[in-house]
Amino acid sequence: MSLVVVGSVAYDGVETPHGRVERMLGGSCTYVALAASFFTKVGIVAVVGDDFCDADTDLLAGRGIDLAGLERVPGKTFFWSGVYSPDMNDRTTLRTDLNVFADFNPKLPESYRKQPYLLLGNIQPALQRAVRQQMKAPKLVGGDTMNYWITSARDELVETLHDWDFLLINDGEARQLSGKYNLRHAAQAIFEMGPKTLIIKRGEYGAILFRPEGHFIVPGYLLEDVFDPTGAGDSFAGGFFGYLAGCGLDLDAADADPGEIRRAVIYGSVMGSFCCEKFGVDRFRTLTRAEINARYNEFKQFTEF
Amino acid sequence: MSLVVVGSVAYDGVETPHGRVERMLGGSCTYVALAASFFTKVGIVAVVGDDFCDADTDLLAGRGIDLAGLERVPGKTFFWSGVYSPDMNDRTTLRTDLNVFADFNPKLPESYRKQPYLLLGNIQPALQRAVRQQMKAPKLVGGDTMNYWITSARDELVETLHDWDFLLINDGEARQLSGKYNLRHAAQAIFEMGPKTLIIKRGEYGAILFRPEGHFIVPGYLLEDVFDPTGAGDSFAGGFFGYLAGCGLDLDAADADPGEIRRAVIYGSVMGSFCCEKFGVDRFRTLTRAEINARYNEFKQFTEF
Repeated sequence: MSLVVVGSVAYDGVETPHGRVERMLGGSCTYVALAASFFTKVGIVAVVGDDFCDADTDLLAGRGIDLAGLERVPGKTFFWSGVYSPDMNDRTTLRTDLNVFADFNPKLPESYRKQPYLLLGNIQPALQRAVRQQMKAPKLVGGDTMNYWITSARDELVETLHDWDFLLINDGEARQLSGKYNLRHAAQAIFEMGPKTLIIKRGEYGAILFRPEGHFIVPGYLLEDVFDPTGAGDSFAGGFFGYLAGCGLDLDAADADPGEIRRAVIYGSVMGSFCCEKFGVDRFRTLTRAEINARYNEFKQFTEF
Repeated sequence: MSLVVVGSVAYDGVETPHGRVERMLGGSCTYVALAASFFTKVGIVAVVGDDFCDADTDLLAGRGIDLAGLERVPGKTFFWSGVYSPDMNDRTTLRTDLNVFADFNPKLPESYRKQPYLLLGNIQPALQRAVRQQMKAPKLVGGDTMNYWITSARDELVETLHDWDFLLINDGEARQLSGKYNLRHAAQAIFEMGPKTLIIKRGEYGAILFRPEGHFIVPGYLLEDVFDPTGAGDSFAGGFFGYLAGCGLDLDAADADPGEIRRAVIYGSVMGSFCCEKFGVDRFRTLTRAEINARYNEFKQFTEF
């Protein structure tokens, strides 16, 4: 194993203009781990209830994901449901039942603690910090957060971010966290909080990588059909960090080869785009490394001049 | 002369978070012509009133723009004023006084009619068509339109588009014109209307070039400060078409070198980004070809991987 991923493993109910699924595997940890598993060995830290299906455990295990840190406790698995707007740019949450996730207190198996890569999914900042402290000497630590924590647990979040190498958030969150509307200025303010690598996700418009020495912008992939955008941002994170972990890279070494981290952003974009092609995690059931490589080449073709 | 540009020459009153200007030179034809003048010789077709200032005529003439087609009639010049939202993504029109523009009936000077390139700015589709018919055998014809004409003069617009080589519109207009939300599908529908080259402008997110053989996406330039976005789309059009005209290219020849039309899209993006750096057309007063080339290289740097 190489990459430890912490976050939620859940069941989702989703409705998009293309259809409706009552209950399917979801959660930030699930999407990150599945996407990253195409690039590196992954171990997850999460909690599920006694209703968690064997078929879902099998899917994760089938992708070589280490489940030693997947705690199973009495009660129900985290459940979320939502409905997307006709253009799928907005979604309304219908239900959030935290269930067993309400008392999630991540404990890392001994085998996880000496791993070089740690990705902290979008959970309470204090829990992210507690997980970070259980790791021995990770080479690279980064993660995600959301508007809810920026508003309700700002001081805790700022303290938590302090020793992260990278932060992956969307443009609205970057503006909210930094208090700056202009994204160049927002990036400067976030560098001062700790992370020296910032990836701003812009949904269908792609992503921006900010580093103190400069930035890199990649447009979003134009899909023929977006079936379900759920998990696209987490799949981006998994592709990005999975690729870096697979290369054995750390971000200081990226100073020597800035191309490697740009390629990681492309692999993130590739995985985010595949995620939207089917409901939930379905696209990852059949996806191959050859398809990933072909789409990477498409990114080259439609951006180079 | 090489490129004929038809559209509005106007006075604008603009308020942005950075300040307010009561009356300054504006209009689609003005921005297109100024931007294009850095790449090729331009002649304009437009109408102004007897209040049009010599200083503004001098600015245009100083950039080598042929003013033989700039009609001056009794009355006042077209006046528009508007105020931008704090994030400058929306604007509210405060006043639109068509004045002498209400009776605009473009007549091309004889010297214009044999020119190889024609750019039809955003005016009534029937007028665009009338101008097109006055040209002898242009190598390349294209232009812009807007939601107002798509709604109120759809049949006239569709008839007008029929013999255009390219169309430059924003994403909302592309969706409205085609009736398709997905931009790939929208492009297919627009190809069937005539233009085989479609450039979709996405504001701060950049632009997409669609051609039957594939597409090219360029992200927007991240400005340190956006002073005034007025005219950015027209400056894009001027940079794009000015570059093609400067190369002597036609879009059929672009099949042989698709790189040339991609570079034209970059030059469009470069000119749109410069336009936003100062109020109105002010940035074009001091801009140099060396600055344009430097920004072109910046586009390469922040997109290549």
